[in-house]
Amino acid sequence: MKPTLTVSAVQQPCNEDRQTNLNFSIAKIEEAASANADLVVLPELHLGPYFCQNEDYNNFALAQPIPGPATEILATVAKRLKIVIVSTIFEKRAAGLYHNTAVIFDKDGSIAGKYRKMHIPDDPGFYEKYYFTPGDLGFKPIDTSIGKLGILVCWDQWFPEAARLMALAGAELLIYPTAIGWDPQDTPEEHQRQLDAWITIQRSHAVANGIPVISCNRIGFEQAPNSDAGINFWGNSFIAGPQGEILTNANATEVKLLTATLVSTRIEKVRQIWPYFRDRRIDAYQDLTRRFID
Amino acid sequence: MKPTLTVSAVQQPCNEDRQTNLNFSIAKIEEAASANADLVVLPELHLGPYFCQNEDYNNFALAQPIPGPATEILATVAKRLKIVIVSTIFEKRAAGLYHNTAVIFDKDGSIAGKYRKMHIPDDPGFYEKYYFTPGDLGFKPIDTSIGKLGILVCWDQWFPEAARLMALAGAELLIYPTAIGWDPQDTPEEHQRQLDAWITIQRSHAVANGIPVISCNRIGFEQAPNSDAGINFWGNSFIAGPQGEILTNANATEVKLLTATLVSTRIEKVRQIWPYFRDRRIDAYQDLTRRFID
Repeated sequence: MKPTLTVSAVQQPCNEDRQTNLNFSIAKIEEAASANADLVVLPELHLGPYFCQNEDYNNFALAQPIPGPATEILATVAKRLKIVIVSTIFEKRAAGLYHNTAVIFDKDGSIAGKYRKMHIPDDPGFYEKYYFTPGDLGFKPIDTSIGKLGILVCWDQWFPEAARLMALAGAELLIYPTAIGWDPQDTPEEHQRQLDAWITIQRSHAVANGIPVISCNRIGFEQAPNSDAGINFWGNSFIAGPQGEILTNANATEVKLLTATLVSTRIEKVRQIWPYFRDRRIDAYQDLTRRFID
Repeated sequence: MKPTLTVSAVQQPCNEDRQTNLNFSIAKIEEAASANADLVVLPELHLGPYFCQNEDYNNFALAQPIPGPATEILATVAKRLKIVIVSTIFEKRAAGLYHNTAVIFDKDGSIAGKYRKMHIPDDPGFYEKYYFTPGDLGFKPIDTSIGKLGILVCWDQWFPEAARLMALAGAELLIYPTAIGWDPQDTPEEHQRQLDAWITIQRSHAVANGIPVISCNRIGFEQAPNSDAGINFWGNSFIAGPQGEILTNANATEVKLLTATLVSTRIEKVRQIWPYFRDRRIDAYQDLTRRFID
């Protein structure tokens, strides 16, 4: 990792007008670059509304190959601004084979790597198992000119295994593009518990692995098609340091470019003080590959 | 697990006068029983001061067999009060073989099981690798009359693998007796980051596994022998529900009996809403048993 790394995340709404939406993202990337950011993260599937609120085969028309039209535009932006960009795209890999895929553009506009979302949710309002085949690229950090990036996507954030495997493979940063929100029918107390749990579990990955975490969520209410239901995307994007300490964050409704500066010597010192990798009981972890121990 | 379970933790100092100290613990257990608690947790190595601040072979004289004098007293208390007790003892297993061992007494006074601390720290002021052989009983929940208890001890709390393995083996509660505190020479900001990290990582185990967590720490400043150094044990014991939500907690200095009531139907509902066990990518977790992926 660079000795000093400036990282950004764009908390934004993701609207129906896909061109306006993308232009908005690009304006924020330009703002990040003006602030000398090395890296900028966009929310999960930022090109448009979160289409997984129902199962509709017409939505497969939204998917794109990688490389494809969206990655060509973002590659140009990365090269022009000399900034690393983390985008997430509904990937068409083959007929009948689609993924939820993060694409990492390096500062020269090349695609440094891809990560295909490994853990796929399926909840009322989040019908992702219909659209996305679980990733088959494993938990491999992406080598870039600024360091090794451990990209994980949304539902992955609830699985400590994913964060650990990225860290064991040398990730120097964990990055979570995400699209998560509240069911307006739940109580305010349940909303608070869910939000706190989401912040807590992601901060814990920083703690457990001694590495910074960037979490980038969208904002805004999106109505489900032909339904009274919808999701109120809860924002609260944040950047945490290697002890899980919040360096910067956003509230539930604001558009915000979050930026923080990470210093590699401090990160290494934290990992010397709390040397968890030294003490992992790898002789006793075999059952982590079991579904359950009946 | 019982449909409704009342659980307690005793946050207390652990003083030089071992008899007074144990009597204090027993008085608090009586108080818990009067409040109809099913279970009470004592801090790690509660029989006396935290002796691992230096390496002194005379300290091995503090160790006891299990069963032994301390477990006989606590067994009697458990039986008299019909309460499950979680104690942690410096176990003498054989000549030259010692462990940091949690002992779980059931309501009838029997020893329901033991857990030998698996992850052993070694930091300035926490020289545990000198005293304790790493546990060899694995991550096995203890079957009791009130449910399956996932007992883990202190340094274990930083390892998501330990919590996960207990949950996969059917633990219905995670319980962390602990002895952790501040180095007075660190800054207030560092103190806050460490405390927040400690709370965050333990709450995250509740979140990741959908089960309640009890964390029981000691309080008070303990001077290291023949030294200006010492540890200011930071208390902050807490009981969290299955979304990591804090049900009750203590501050850094108070003696407190913490008590909370857990409802099994709510816990099961949380695990239905957030079904992480359904989606774990056990086909891609093999490398969790590696030290590092070079």
